[in-house]
Amino acid sequence: MYKAKAYSVAGATSPFVADTIPRREIADRDVQIEILYCGICHSDLHTARDEWNSVMPTIYPCVPGHEIVGRVTKAGLAVTKVKPGDLAGVGCLVDSDHDCPICKADMEQFCTGATFTYNSPDRHGTAPVTYGGYSESIVVDERFVLSVPPNLNLAGVAPLLCAGITTYSPIRRWGDIKGKRVGVVGLGGLGHMGVKFAKAFGAHVTVFTTSPGKKEDAFRLGADEVIVSTSLAEMRQHAGSFHFILDTIAADHDINAYIAMLGLEGHITLVGVPEKPHPLAASGLIFGHRSISGSLIGGIRETQEMLDFCGQHNITADVEVIPVQKINEAYERLLKSDVKYRFSIDMASLRSE
Amino acid sequence: MYKAKAYSVAGATSPFVADTIPRREIADRDVQIEILYCGICHSDLHTARDEWNSVMPTIYPCVPGHEIVGRVTKAGLAVTKVKPGDLAGVGCLVDSDHDCPICKADMEQFCTGATFTYNSPDRHGTAPVTYGGYSESIVVDERFVLSVPPNLNLAGVAPLLCAGITTYSPIRRWGDIKGKRVGVVGLGGLGHMGVKFAKAFGAHVTVFTTSPGKKEDAFRLGADEVIVSTSLAEMRQHAGSFHFILDTIAADHDINAYIAMLGLEGHITLVGVPEKPHPLAASGLIFGHRSISGSLIGGIRETQEMLDFCGQHNITADVEVIPVQKINEAYERLLKSDVKYRFSIDMASLRSE
Repeated sequence: MYKAKAYSVAGATSPFVADTIPRREIADRDVQIEILYCGICHSDLHTARDEWNSVMPTIYPCVPGHEIVGRVTKAGLAVTKVKPGDLAGVGCLVDSDHDCPICKADMEQFCTGATFTYNSPDRHGTAPVTYGGYSESIVVDERFVLSVPPNLNLAGVAPLLCAGITTYSPIRRWGDIKGKRVGVVGLGGLGHMGVKFAKAFGAHVTVFTTSPGKKEDAFRLGADEVIVSTSLAEMRQHAGSFHFILDTIAADHDINAYIAMLGLEGHITLVGVPEKPHPLAASGLIFGHRSISGSLIGGIRETQEMLDFCGQHNITADVEVIPVQKINEAYERLLKSDVKYRFSIDMASLRSE
Repeated sequence: MYKAKAYSVAGATSPFVADTIPRREIADRDVQIEILYCGICHSDLHTARDEWNSVMPTIYPCVPGHEIVGRVTKAGLAVTKVKPGDLAGVGCLVDSDHDCPICKADMEQFCTGATFTYNSPDRHGTAPVTYGGYSESIVVDERFVLSVPPNLNLAGVAPLLCAGITTYSPIRRWGDIKGKRVGVVGLGGLGHMGVKFAKAFGAHVTVFTTSPGKKEDAFRLGADEVIVSTSLAEMRQHAGSFHFILDTIAADHDINAYIAMLGLEGHITLVGVPEKPHPLAASGLIFGHRSISGSLIGGIRETQEMLDFCGQHNITADVEVIPVQKINEAYERLLKSDVKYRFSIDMASLRSE
C-alpha cells in the first residue's frame, strides 16, 4: 500500500480538500497509472453530495472521478495489455466477477459483482470503498484498463470514458445510422458527444435544444440542423421524420414530444434519469410501432472500440481544463450548466501542490 | 347499390337496433361476402359511444364490427384471390392508397390513406362512412380480403381478425421466442390470444393477472405459469427473468412493475391505450438496456400469415356466440369484462329476423 495525493469530500455538504488516500501495490494483473486528466461527470456531484443515498449511500471520505486518462507507471508480471509509458484510460468500472454470463457477453456494467471506480466496496480491502480519479494515481486490474490512441488531445480524451461511451453505445447498438435522420436532445456533456458520434457515423444530425443561443455551437460541433424544442411550429414541421433519437436530458421534460418526432418504427434511447417518472402516452408508441430504450455506459470491449473509433475519427470532448483546486467552483458552475462541455482536471496541478 | 340488413346505433347513447344500410355493387376488384360471424371488439364500443370523439368523431348511424368471417358470394372480374363459395375474412382495414412506401412495406395500418372497416370516410361514396360487420354482408376490395383456413371453428376465427393479429404481430416481430420466458399481462380478449400464440411459438408462457380466479383458465389456455400481479412477493421472485412481455391492458396500471420483470435487454410491447399516460421510470430501462414498444394490429400480408399459422396450429379465439339481438346486453357485459374471451355474433340471427 502506498499513499496517493487526492481531492476528497468529508461529507455531503463539505467542500473538496487536498487529502491522501491509500492505493494498493500492484498485483500480477494490476496496472498503476499516473493520472494526467480526469473529467468531471454529473454523477461525481450526485455522489459527492450523497444525492443517490436511497440507491447507493456515499461512504466518506469520497474521491469521485471516472473519466480517467493517464500514463502507465507500473504493470504486474501477468499484464499483457499495456506496459509502462503507455497511455491508458479508466472509466466507470474497475472490476467485475469476469465469469458470469453478463461479463462473458461483454456487458460488465450490468454484472452484479461489478466494482465501480468510486464509492463501490473495495474487494482488495485497501479502503472501505474505491477511490476515483481526482487523484495523482490509480491501480486497476488490466482487464479494466483501456488503451488510448496516441493522436488525441488528452484533456479531451478523459470525458470519453463516461460521456463518450454513454452516447457511443446506444448509437452503435441501434444499427447503421449512415444517411439516417438522427436527433440528439440536449447539448451538454453527453449531447455534444452524441452529435460528434452521430456525425462521424454518417447520420444527418439534428440537435433539439431549448436554448436558441446554442445553435451556432451545435453547427460547429457537426449538427446539420437545430430545432428549438420550445417552438411548437418547428417541432410540428419535423414530426414523424426521425429514425433515431438520443435523449440526453436528465431534467424533467416531455418525452412524448420526441416520440412524436419519430417516424414509423423509429426509436428513442434515454440516457438521463430525471427525478420523476416520465408521463408516457402509449398511443405515441402504438400508432407508429415506435420504441424507447434505456442505455447505461458500455462494457469494456465496447469502450475500447469507442476509443479506437475516436482515434480514427479524431474525436474528443470539448473541455474546459481546470486545476484540481477549482473543483468546488466547477461543481457550482456544473449546476448551472455553465461549461462547454465538460470540465477536465489537469492533474499536474495536484502533483505540484 | 343494394340494401343489407345491419344493426346500428343512431347516437352515442342509443341502443343497437335493426336497420338497413347501403352496400355497393361489386366492381372488378371487389368481393361480396355473406357475413357468418362478427366478433365484438372494445373499439366497437368506444366508437358506437363516440368515446374517441377527440381523435375520430363517430358519424351516425354507426355500424361497428371489424372481426368478420364469412363466405364469398360474388367476386369481380379481376379478382384472383378468392372465388364464390370460399371462406373469407375482413379485419380492421378495407382499403389504403396501395402505392405509398408504407403500403409497399406491408404496413397498410399506418397508411395515411387507409380506410378503416367502419366510421372511416367511404371513398366509394356509398355512404358518408364505412359500415362494419354487424351486418349480413359486406363488399371489400380483394386486396383487403383474407383467406380463411377451412379447418377452423368459424365463430372463433372472427376475433382473429383484430384480437388475433394485434397479439400475433408483436410476438412475431420480437423474434424467435422458442424456449424464451414470455409474459402476457392481462387475460382478456387480447391476452388469451397472446397466450395461445406465445405457446404455439414454443415459449415458456407466464400470465400476469390481478385475478387469482383466472389461474385455472390460464393453464387451460396453455400458460406454464401464472403470477398474481398484486402479490409483491410473487412479482419480486420473478424480477429480471423475462425476455419478452406482451402487455394487453388498456386500463391504468404500473408498467414499471413489468419492466422490472424483464431481464437484460428484455422488451415489453404495449397494445392497450389507457386514458392517462403511464408514469415511466427511465431507470428501469437504463439499468438493463430494456425497451418498450407499441404495436397496432398488423398489415394485410401479416394478417394472412397469422390466419395460416392458426390453421396449422388449430388456433381460434375462445368465444361466446350470441345472436345479433343481444349486442346491447353484450356491450354491458363487455364493460364488466364478463366474457370468456370474446363475443362472436352469429349472423344467421340477423338473416332470420
